[in-house]
Amino acid sequence: MIFTAHIDIMPHDALLDPQGKAVEGGLAKLNMANLTQVRVGKHIRLQVEADSLEAAHTVVDSACTQLLANTIMERFQYRLEQIS
Amino acid sequence: MIFTAHIDIMPHDALLDPQGKAVEGGLAKLNMANLTQVRVGKHIRLQVEADSLEAAHTVVDSACTQLLANTIMERFQYRLEQIS
Repeated sequence: MIFTAHIDIMPHDALLDPQGKAVEGGLAKLNMANLTQVRVGKHIRLQVEADSLEAAHTVVDSACTQLLANTIMERFQYRLEQIS
Repeated sequence: MIFTAHIDIMPHDALLDPQGKAVEGGLAKLNMANLTQVRVGKHIRLQVEADSLEAAHTVVDSACTQLLANTIMERFQYRLEQIS
């Protein structure tokens, strides 16, 4: 079975996000001060080959904790979409 | 009305994604060679204050095209979630 994983990795809410602050300043300068609380993270899309949905979850969890996200500073969430 | 916008900004499919390739190599070294076709982009979350859903769409579209995404190399998609 093949799945596409759509993974979002965001800084923890308790942490400052200087990149988000910079974007917020840029938006304000473009007269979009009604856009606030900007947080910038990563979006990763990948293809998973696995025997079952459960196995796919296991491998994506493991990829996120071991390589993709720094779980001290970031949290991740994802959804899997079966494509075949 | 206040909305949260969840924006994904990804490199166009036709373009190489060296960061994605590097992640794919890293995953293979961690014995996760069943994870392939990695694409790395940005995920941005922000709050929108607007009079209507339509107005919120307009301002988020404009923020994406003017500041957040480089539409030559990236495409964006987003969803709006009303929070009040």
